[in-house]
Amino acid sequence: MSYIIPASAASWIPVQPGNDFPVQNLPFGIVKTPALPKSVGVALGEYVIHMTALFDAGYLKNLPFDRADFASDYLNQLMSKGKQACSDLRKRLFELFKVGGELKESADLYGTILLKQADVTMELPLRIGDYTDFYSSREHAFNMGVMFRDPENALLPNWLHIPVGYHGRASSIIVSGQPIYRPKGQQLPVENQPPVFGPTKQLDIELEMAFTTFQGKPLGESITTLEADQYIFGMCLFNDWTARDIQKWEYIPLGPFLGKNFASSVSPWIVSLDALEPFRIPGPVQEPKVLPYLEYSGNKHLDIKLEVILETEDGTENLISKSNYKHMYWNMNQQLAHHTVNGCNINCGDLMASGTISGTTPDSFGSMMELCWKGTKPIKLKDGSERKFLQDGDTIIMRGYCQGENFRVGFGEVRTKILAAK
Amino acid sequence: MSYIIPASAASWIPVQPGNDFPVQNLPFGIVKTPALPKSVGVALGEYVIHMTALFDAGYLKNLPFDRADFASDYLNQLMSKGKQACSDLRKRLFELFKVGGELKESADLYGTILLKQADVTMELPLRIGDYTDFYSSREHAFNMGVMFRDPENALLPNWLHIPVGYHGRASSIIVSGQPIYRPKGQQLPVENQPPVFGPTKQLDIELEMAFTTFQGKPLGESITTLEADQYIFGMCLFNDWTARDIQKWEYIPLGPFLGKNFASSVSPWIVSLDALEPFRIPGPVQEPKVLPYLEYSGNKHLDIKLEVILETEDGTENLISKSNYKHMYWNMNQQLAHHTVNGCNINCGDLMASGTISGTTPDSFGSMMELCWKGTKPIKLKDGSERKFLQDGDTIIMRGYCQGENFRVGFGEVRTKILAAK
Repeated sequence: MSYIIPASAASWIPVQPGNDFPVQNLPFGIVKTPALPKSVGVALGEYVIHMTALFDAGYLKNLPFDRADFASDYLNQLMSKGKQACSDLRKRLFELFKVGGELKESADLYGTILLKQADVTMELPLRIGDYTDFYSSREHAFNMGVMFRDPENALLPNWLHIPVGYHGRASSIIVSGQPIYRPKGQQLPVENQPPVFGPTKQLDIELEMAFTTFQGKPLGESITTLEADQYIFGMCLFNDWTARDIQKWEYIPLGPFLGKNFASSVSPWIVSLDALEPFRIPGPVQEPKVLPYLEYSGNKHLDIKLEVILETEDGTENLISKSNYKHMYWNMNQQLAHHTVNGCNINCGDLMASGTISGTTPDSFGSMMELCWKGTKPIKLKDGSERKFLQDGDTIIMRGYCQGENFRVGFGEVRTKILAAK
Repeated sequence: MSYIIPASAASWIPVQPGNDFPVQNLPFGIVKTPALPKSVGVALGEYVIHMTALFDAGYLKNLPFDRADFASDYLNQLMSKGKQACSDLRKRLFELFKVGGELKESADLYGTILLKQADVTMELPLRIGDYTDFYSSREHAFNMGVMFRDPENALLPNWLHIPVGYHGRASSIIVSGQPIYRPKGQQLPVENQPPVFGPTKQLDIELEMAFTTFQGKPLGESITTLEADQYIFGMCLFNDWTARDIQKWEYIPLGPFLGKNFASSVSPWIVSLDALEPFRIPGPVQEPKVLPYLEYSGNKHLDIKLEVILETEDGTENLISKSNYKHMYWNMNQQLAHHTVNGCNINCGDLMASGTISGTTPDSFGSMMELCWKGTKPIKLKDGSERKFLQDGDTIIMRGYCQGENFRVGFGEVRTKILAAK
């Protein structure tokens, strides 16, 4: 069902080496220009294919899409046509834009169908119904256990049996570029003393990736690990902002709430699962053996290189972590099978995040809490300052890509500046 | 801003004593008939006012509503017009349907504007964006602490400082009348042994009420306890289904997930906060003193009598609990102020549930877990059988009402039958 664009293919639109958006990618987003309403866009090199304009020009005939699927504020309506239709759409785009394809370079394409990415605003791509956050990196779960519980029993008893997850807040998910305000809330700086109220002193990131779903099955039915691929549209970068001090005081016994729901940031381009298929790799051996509904076959993990950059107010980028999505213990197929095994229904445009992705080495951890090891190892920045947690004025940038032979399938970035508490 | 219909008022539509829907109530729902598409409806006695038909007949002029606000699949569009508009709409309905009002009884109203409730299907009233569940009954939190943790320190340290809450699943919220399937999932029947998989053996209810919101403030801003009333549209009954064995094994450290997200049931009528205003009562003294952002003035609790009925397959009703919404420690104003104090935004149609409402006496507890005290005191039913948890074929009915001098403002019921696991 999936459509994979050959590694050897090229577009007549020039794509520089190292660009995230070669013709093998063709990710979907929502673009806005000063002159035009929101529309689905597809990234290609430094350009965006304006899908409403392409439809209006008659290049998307004989596909199961209407104009309204493209002239939309969100990708949901396009996604509601299902996996096969979306695969066929990418195939059609490839046939149009490949070297020797149906479309030829001509001046009148530019400014109408082909817009410079620099000339459009990227909008939140999804109307997210429900947002779920998993906790599927073993190294992250282990690190948190060592720091906050018992180093001898760092992983909780359920962790190797369950892709642990919880529900998060959908309303406060924002797109790259939108700043956040430092959240305020209750904290307990001194044990057995009354709590205090104020801006968080422990603002942190969590480096995650998220996938978004096609319409699922009715309530009461389940999606198997074998079926899961057919329900995943694509992936994006995800920064699960966390106020550690607020979270620590509130989260027992019912989990994270105000420590996280002030904001989560997503990258604007949704890279289709089809585009990621060439980067499948085996996952870790799961021992103890998982229950049958969590068994899977084939390579269901993905090799996605990830970076976290802290940009100080002077515009200097500091690389603070290099991780990889391959560090997941539980893959998306297992997450989706688990999420629905009790009959829970999923909808088109739901978002499911991975949980913090930490590697095995200290420079590959996915949160400040781990990178600075609970504040004991501050990060030194190029401007001479140090960070244990984030400061007002800091910008966090996450980037990610899959490396092919002569190209990369990239996610662009999710970039968020921290403003002082309101 | 709120509009309270006088206790002495009556409608020219006869309303029997004890009926939940006198003219003082006028709750909103979504109705469907075999002949007509979904529409906003308002309950009055044994009738529904078909609001699209009323609009088409010209009786809703000079109000800020369009036809599409009533000819809608959900109440959200009507609610998007805000509190003042919704108060004015109820006022208009009262002026039309009160004794001596603008509308007079006439045969041609019946079957068009006035439909028998028995002749319509009640649909899910809200397109719920985000669903939050609080944990705001002190007695419930205490009981759970006594049973599962430490009787000497039953309340966790944060409980008297924070209206503890967590995010739940919106996609699986269903309306009264829709059955649920017994969920399957991982359980740990024997400590230190591997988990097993199967249908839950501990299917339970949680007696709750929920409120739904008007559009809130932008991300980064907060709603104060003083402002909160202006952001609450109304309330409904809420059954927060819980699989205790699944929950117990999964919930540490990130909270409930599959133990709850298979279904939550709501009553179809949303009773406006305006209709509930006459039933305000003082809340408990909160000691220790709460932080300033949680302080409030005036009577912000509500006296709402609640009942839980277990109906066996032979149709016999067994009253298993009598509770009251007045047993809340944290009121809605505090919940909403807390939820947004970190800048979290709320949207029109969000749903926020109270948490299990347990009273002080064993017959007023809001869950089977508490009513049967962890399985040690089974409930005896009229058919001679016993229950510790719920069986396939059982139907749970929750009812609630506020008692006025000669009338009640009621919520109708939320009724859900349990079917065998799929």
